[in-house]
Amino acid sequence: MNRFSLNQATTRGWPLPELAAGCVAQGVTQVGLWREEVQEFGVARTATLLRSFGLSVTSLCRGGFFDRPDWLLSNRQAIDEAYDLGAPALVLVSGGLPAGSRDVDGARAHIGDAIGELVPYALAAGVRLAIEPLHPMFCSDRCVVSTLGQALDLARPHPAEAVGVVVDTYHLWWDDTVWAQIARAGAEGRIASFQVADWITPLPAGVLLGRGLPGTGCVELRRFREAVDATGFTGPIEVEVFNEQVWARPGAEILTDTLEGYRKHVL
Amino acid sequence: MNRFSLNQATTRGWPLPELAAGCVAQGVTQVGLWREEVQEFGVARTATLLRSFGLSVTSLCRGGFFDRPDWLLSNRQAIDEAYDLGAPALVLVSGGLPAGSRDVDGARAHIGDAIGELVPYALAAGVRLAIEPLHPMFCSDRCVVSTLGQALDLARPHPAEAVGVVVDTYHLWWDDTVWAQIARAGAEGRIASFQVADWITPLPAGVLLGRGLPGTGCVELRRFREAVDATGFTGPIEVEVFNEQVWARPGAEILTDTLEGYRKHVL
Repeated sequence: MNRFSLNQATTRGWPLPELAAGCVAQGVTQVGLWREEVQEFGVARTATLLRSFGLSVTSLCRGGFFDRPDWLLSNRQAIDEAYDLGAPALVLVSGGLPAGSRDVDGARAHIGDAIGELVPYALAAGVRLAIEPLHPMFCSDRCVVSTLGQALDLARPHPAEAVGVVVDTYHLWWDDTVWAQIARAGAEGRIASFQVADWITPLPAGVLLGRGLPGTGCVELRRFREAVDATGFTGPIEVEVFNEQVWARPGAEILTDTLEGYRKHVL
Repeated sequence: MNRFSLNQATTRGWPLPELAAGCVAQGVTQVGLWREEVQEFGVARTATLLRSFGLSVTSLCRGGFFDRPDWLLSNRQAIDEAYDLGAPALVLVSGGLPAGSRDVDGARAHIGDAIGELVPYALAAGVRLAIEPLHPMFCSDRCVVSTLGQALDLARPHPAEAVGVVVDTYHLWWDDTVWAQIARAGAEGRIASFQVADWITPLPAGVLLGRGLPGTGCVELRRFREAVDATGFTGPIEVEVFNEQVWARPGAEILTDTLEGYRKHVL
């Protein structure tokens, strides 16, 4: 249980003070945060709140979207926020194809360049950039980085303390090469974040909000956890689920179910 | 133009006699067929109709679904139908995970075994089994074969005249290794079918019916055609689009737009 982290997106709509108290009530000591929610509550105020409850921050979502004109400024600001929150990792959702573009190779090359530009800033802040491969169904509109192999190739030119990768079960479970790539990620010291969600169908329109709580779908979650652990990774295990039906329920109930699924299907 | 083939799914709802006449009217000489539609019209009747219009059949969709209890019988029947229609290739959509299963490795291994069982029957009929990798978003419910590399690995134990693969732009465009795998598919003599559709977002609920006509999306269709051609492939180029908005229009209009997109974005 000491490795569990509740990603705030799983209990979307749960106000931060209630989330903090609710986590402590159920023995949770770590959370993953989202920039929009944190900004709304205030970055410094969030840091103070979490400290007062003894909660630490495992990651901040999200930087990236390198296809947008303001990417440099917005990613520097995200690094600053991660620093202020004490989050060791800033998750990067790298962005899709620019409007009207079909140049997926070009978009991927640009991401490499953009990350290179951010590295000194991230190193200075002590915040690690965590490249997240997203499921290929998001390739055109959210993230042209679709596999763990691609994420590791993008990370390779940079120091491991500056750039790592996210292993997210939801995005990677279909890939028969993922086990080899997890081993590689561990060997190269690149696992910056491990996130868990389950795959359920049918997918809803837009496909963003169709994730399942651990154990409700078809992903071999324990196999992922064991593969990540086998590399020597001892970091947090964040559960991050986007699901409108889940969000309709009270935060404390969602957390209870999340913890039950985590115990039964991840540990 | 002599390589263009209209997959019947693109103009779903267009009755076969009208489709046949409509193809001839627009200079189209080849079609890809679907079993349900053919069965409804009658297999022998379809073969006679198409012959009378001078149309040849480039593929029959679909065999596969090896997760279903009747897979052996239904695939033999599909091979028989392909033979009767003169279709050189039977497209295999291999099936997802059995209900309640999380064993994706097991499902993939079973597909290899099942194809092995079908090979003698397919060879005897002169019908080639064409393994189609489907986009990873279909992995759990339609097809655990998600990449061209996996499809080629499944084909490898069998004679190339018995088992090939489908290169479908819609399913494969996101994969940065696809260019190397197309070259491999050509070198191994495995390209049994080349299908074209474009990727558009947002995806609709269920994600099946969200494909775009050539040129309406973000896929480098010409690059795919050139990569396939570079292997020496000279076979048909089938346009296969599932889209409810497209289907709402008259078949002849859809075909006109399909041909225009094909000329501008594929040739």
